[in-house]
Amino acid sequence: MPLLSNTRIMRIEWADCDPAGIVFYPRYFEMFDLSTTMLFEKALGMKKINFIKAHNFGGYPMFDTRARFFKPTTFGDVVEIASSVTFGRTSFDVEHRLTRDGELCVEGFEKRVWVIRDPSDPTKIKSHPIPREVIEKFEM
Amino acid sequence: MPLLSNTRIMRIEWADCDPAGIVFYPRYFEMFDLSTTMLFEKALGMKKINFIKAHNFGGYPMFDTRARFFKPTTFGDVVEIASSVTFGRTSFDVEHRLTRDGELCVEGFEKRVWVIRDPSDPTKIKSHPIPREVIEKFEM
Amino acid sequence: MPLLSNTRIMRIEWADCDPAGIVFYPRYFEMFDLSTTMLFEKALGMKKINFIKAHNFGGYPMFDTRARFFKPTTFGDVVEIASSVTFGRTSFDVEHRLTRDGELCVEGFEKRVWVIRDPSDPTKIKSHPIPREVIEKFEM
Amino acid sequence: MPLLSNTRIMRIEWADCDPAGIVFYPRYFEMFDLSTTMLFEKALGMKKINFIKAHNFGGYPMFDTRARFFKPTTFGDVVEIASSVTFGRTSFDVEHRLTRDGELCVEGFEKRVWVIRDPSDPTKIKSHPIPREVIEKFEM
Repeated sequence: MPLLSNTRIMRIEWADCDPAGIVFYPRYFEMFDLSTTMLFEKALGMKKINFIKAHNFGGYPMFDTRARFFKPTTFGDVVEIASSVTFGRTSFDVEHRLTRDGELCVEGFEKRVWVIRDPSDPTKIKSHPIPREVIEKFEM
Repeated sequence: MPLLSNTRIMRIEWADCDPAGIVFYPRYFEMFDLSTTMLFEKALGMKKINFIKAHNFGGYPMFDTRARFFKPTTFGDVVEIASSVTFGRTSFDVEHRLTRDGELCVEGFEKRVWVIRDPSDPTKIKSHPIPREVIEKFEM
Repeated sequence: MPLLSNTRIMRIEWADCDPAGIVFYPRYFEMFDLSTTMLFEKALGMKKINFIKAHNFGGYPMFDTRARFFKPTTFGDVVEIASSVTFGRTSFDVEHRLTRDGELCVEGFEKRVWVIRDPSDPTKIKSHPIPREVIEKFEM
Repeated sequence: MPLLSNTRIMRIEWADCDPAGIVFYPRYFEMFDLSTTMLFEKALGMKKINFIKAHNFGGYPMFDTRARFFKPTTFGDVVEIASSVTFGRTSFDVEHRLTRDGELCVEGFEKRVWVIRDPSDPTKIKSHPIPREVIEKFEM
């Protein structure tokens, strides 16, 4: 069953670019982080700050991330980021494709872990199976 | 009585610069923020994370900050930031001078407020007179 | 005669915030820089990258900037930034008001200089009177 | 033959950390980018800005980068980043190990391409075999 995905359109800004006039690549990871947030917000129907408060949810810290760069992008470029997710038991993978005019510029991959606050010590977090009701919200 | 000041030497890096090849000015505020931390650490003889833990200290949020730009700096430049403080009752001013080879490039000003955690609600902060023993540490 | 102003709505994101859970203040300057770009783009009817290419325009480097902080903002907050400009001969001032639900949180001020590429050496810039046709575009 | 590597010690700062109080992971890529610069500067005996000027060198744009996160780090932490390189014909790999008190916190991988300015159009770059004299500088 295909899962909900999300596409957002954004513009590359001056602040994203380096002396070569192109996006300084760590900024792509910041863009992808926001894309993951927006994908979850779309599926869950609430802002990240609210689903953190709503549940005993501790977040989805990054375990492994990667990006491959095919074409540089520069300030003023309007780009599209399409993000899709695959769920494991306690972790999930997100794939991002950043395109400009349909041409692939950057591919991003993330493996994140679902964590909850430790009931015996709320300042700590521990991994936890992804709740069934979260996954169901992605099933279209 | 002159108060303790601090000078640090740093290098402008690629990541600090924009497509014009010069420091993207918001990064100067990040540099000055660290300079203020280093000035307090020098005076108090402990790392910021420790003086936050040591006292009921809630930090010194910025109330008003300003910078004036005389000469651009570029990656590879070695610059010096000299920082000095003036204490009020519940607030203090910091002045930063960023120079390259003795030439003034950027001047920064900060007015920060001393805050403590609210005893009746530790998730809140409120302004508080700067402790006498903090100021004494700056008196040489 | 009142000049064109611009208001944009944006959301504070996780990446903007620091360990205190609020916007790390240098990020406000980055937000204001983009607001100034958007104000000029609205008036001139073209993207910044295009008005840089269109004329012998070298940009509007910052000469003096300041911000005052009245209320912190946190991730998930939807804020509005209203920006207006006042023109001098070779410089201009921009004022930004960042509000949340109508309440003023941050005020920003900028003094920028209009520069062109030096005809005798295109790698250099020099200040220049703001073109009459630029100012006219702001006159409503 | 073992190649020159580089280890640098740095401190995690407030500006690097997010509302969870730990490093916002895109900042690790910025740290690794600087570590790669420092490794090349150590081998070549000159600052990056100088080896860009010295040769027809166009830089070493990132083609593929990855990081794995084992332990979070927080502001005030003193960490060590050890970086080593492996050369291919027109590309090279860099591996970074970020440790705190000897414990591995983050591992970074980079594949970068050696590029020169296109002789027929200096505004363009193209990949090029890594110069023999560059590789020799890494051979101890």
